Amino acid sequence: MSKARAKKIKLLLLDVDGVMTDGKLFIIPSGESMLEAKGFHAHDGTGFSLARLGGIKTGLITKRISATVHLRARDLKIEHVYQGASDKLATFHEILAKEKLKPEEAAFVGDDIIDLPVMRVCGLAFAVADAREDVKDEAHVITSHRGGEGAVRDAVEYILKAQGSLERAIEDYLSDHTPVEYKTQ
Amino acid sequence: MSKARAKKIKLLLLDVDGVMTDGKLFIIPSGESMLEAKGFHAHDGTGFSLARLGGIKTGLITKRISATVHLRARDLKIEHVYQGASDKLATFHEILAKEKLKPEEAAFVGDDIIDLPVMRVCGLAFAVADAREDVKDEAHVITSHRGGEGAVRDAVEYILKAQGSLERAIEDYLSDHTPVEYKTQ
Amino acid sequence: MSKARAKKIKLLLLDVDGVMTDGKLFIIPSGESMLEAKGFHAHDGTGFSLARLGGIKTGLITKRISATVHLRARDLKIEHVYQGASDKLATFHEILAKEKLKPEEAAFVGDDIIDLPVMRVCGLAFAVADAREDVKDEAHVITSHRGGEGAVRDAVEYILKAQGSLERAIEDYLSDHTPVEYKTQ
Amino acid sequence: MSKARAKKIKLLLLDVDGVMTDGKLFIIPSGESMLEAKGFHAHDGTGFSLARLGGIKTGLITKRISATVHLRARDLKIEHVYQGASDKLATFHEILAKEKLKPEEAAFVGDDIIDLPVMRVCGLAFAVADAREDVKDEAHVITSHRGGEGAVRDAVEYILKAQGSLERAIEDYLSDHTPVEYKTQ
Repeated sequence: MSKARAKKIKLLLLDVDGVMTDGKLFIIPSGESMLEAKGFHAHDGTGFSLARLGGIKTGLITKRISATVHLRARDLKIEHVYQGASDKLATFHEILAKEKLKPEEAAFVGDDIIDLPVMRVCGLAFAVADAREDVKDEAHVITSHRGGEGAVRDAVEYILKAQGSLERAIEDYLSDHTPVEYKTQ
Repeated sequence: MSKARAKKIKLLLLDVDGVMTDGKLFIIPSGESMLEAKGFHAHDGTGFSLARLGGIKTGLITKRISATVHLRARDLKIEHVYQGASDKLATFHEILAKEKLKPEEAAFVGDDIIDLPVMRVCGLAFAVADAREDVKDEAHVITSHRGGEGAVRDAVEYILKAQGSLERAIEDYLSDHTPVEYKTQ
Repeated sequence: MSKARAKKIKLLLLDVDGVMTDGKLFIIPSGESMLEAKGFHAHDGTGFSLARLGGIKTGLITKRISATVHLRARDLKIEHVYQGASDKLATFHEILAKEKLKPEEAAFVGDDIIDLPVMRVCGLAFAVADAREDVKDEAHVITSHRGGEGAVRDAVEYILKAQGSLERAIEDYLSDHTPVEYKTQ
Repeated sequence: MSKARAKKIKLLLLDVDGVMTDGKLFIIPSGESMLEAKGFHAHDGTGFSLARLGGIKTGLITKRISATVHLRARDLKIEHVYQGASDKLATFHEILAKEKLKPEEAAFVGDDIIDLPVMRVCGLAFAVADAREDVKDEAHVITSHRGGEGAVRDAVEYILKAQGSLERAIEDYLSDHTPVEYKTQ
């Protein structure tokens, strides 16, 4: 049962394009090179804060390499950021080794077939609402929101709810008035 | 009853990400730094004009800090602009003090849990159509449009209609032919 | 009847934000100033070509002023481009005078209340599928597509179909192999 | 029958705006000139990899000319890239000649009337889910996803499934751990 699986989770790993975004890569020409912009959702941002307060570490595993992801991950203080990961399963085990965790203690949120190898071995596999069909077929849980529209937040809340720590995390979040550190241009 | 609540409103306060936008933060790399772009809706722009003509003051309370919000707020001539507000309730009371208003004279539009403390004490709490479920559960009114697609306009019209001043505000708006001041690059 | 009205149309005038776009103004900080980006739909681009081939002139009337609109209008070879038009009705009559046309020979596509004065006097008033309700109530025709998703194309096809010239315009369009003039960076 | 048609396909040709994107051209002012940004979907990116592994070549035929398409095509290693193609049918035959293929060995994915001449002669004509109605009427297959949301991936999977090579292509894709070559700024 997925809730029993969720109780064991200590680490939440995520694909980026299609999970933290709606899958769209906005290409902006910049001389001979190009800028790649992506749209991240504010609800997911709060999700990362709730995960931290609920004692869940987070990480990104993505095949693509972009400055945008580096910047957003820094903004969100994500613990593990692996870009250019053509073998996501190897990266998954590398992160587990660093955190001294077993596969069943890690959850993963994916949207495409490249995510399947990790989804098949991790403790709790989420597919976003608009994942490719093949991926939804192999997920333990399908989030109610689409990628880039709050799917990460859904995953965080699912785990914390199962662990009985969601309400406390929300209370802590609402009483935390630390001044905001980041500013964007 | 929400209409009775709306009759007392003199000030409309808003969250930004997910309320004035669809919640998406578009991250564009810019050297070592990043630009943050957001999409604001033209229907909401007209909403701010109608609010002004209907005698309702407006303000923004957002935790995030971005140049984009500063620029859009200036464009819309919003009276109160508070970015970096990690304690929205404290900011809410600060604005009330400046305006010499009671909590029941202020409305707030939110989409996420950080908005709940203000929504619980203000006179009229709106949640946008695509707010997180927890937030919709505590709202007096759910707007018919999603954040960034006219939710702010919905809130303005709801208040002015309840106060019987919407038709007059629209007439005034349509007969106001002041030359446009702003230009964007 | 709207089809009878459409037969008389010689000029198609359009609002920009919410009609040629989905209403979203993407604000990108640029030093102390800001860039305003908008999303225009390729289907509408073809619509302007079909209008030209069907003998319908086109024009834009918008209150806002942005470089983006200037650039897109030049790309589409739109005959009349009026930005900063706070009195759309006055601009409407100015264009009619230039073209020596009567109000019933001009159609207008709108999405918000500022468009109502022109919609009330023009020969054929379109509202886009996601126009504000007040605006849909006063339109002769509601397009099947939303603003920025092909609503302008819908309006062009509606007019040309009523005039019996759509098929011919499409044939001419498909046999026109003039090399493309514009290039974007 | 469309599946019989799909079995013969060796080349998949695509329109760009509305097929590889949702049709939106994001115009960003840049001095006197303009930048044109487009949103490409990650699911389609994987589709190009699967096509390559399944032995299907790919190409783009688009009337518009933009640096964005050049950059994205390079990123995806697309074999044939024709921008500024005002006569898509002539370009179609030019590519066939280069590849020494017959029309029935090429598929095309389109969304607007300019795509019809090629769709009428190619072996398998796809229309994206949100193509203009006239275009859907003449397609052999309508993709389940909209343009820019995975329609290209749908076309690739349809062809490979009919050819019995999809599962093998997916396996090869999942076991290919070549380090990522591209980086974006």
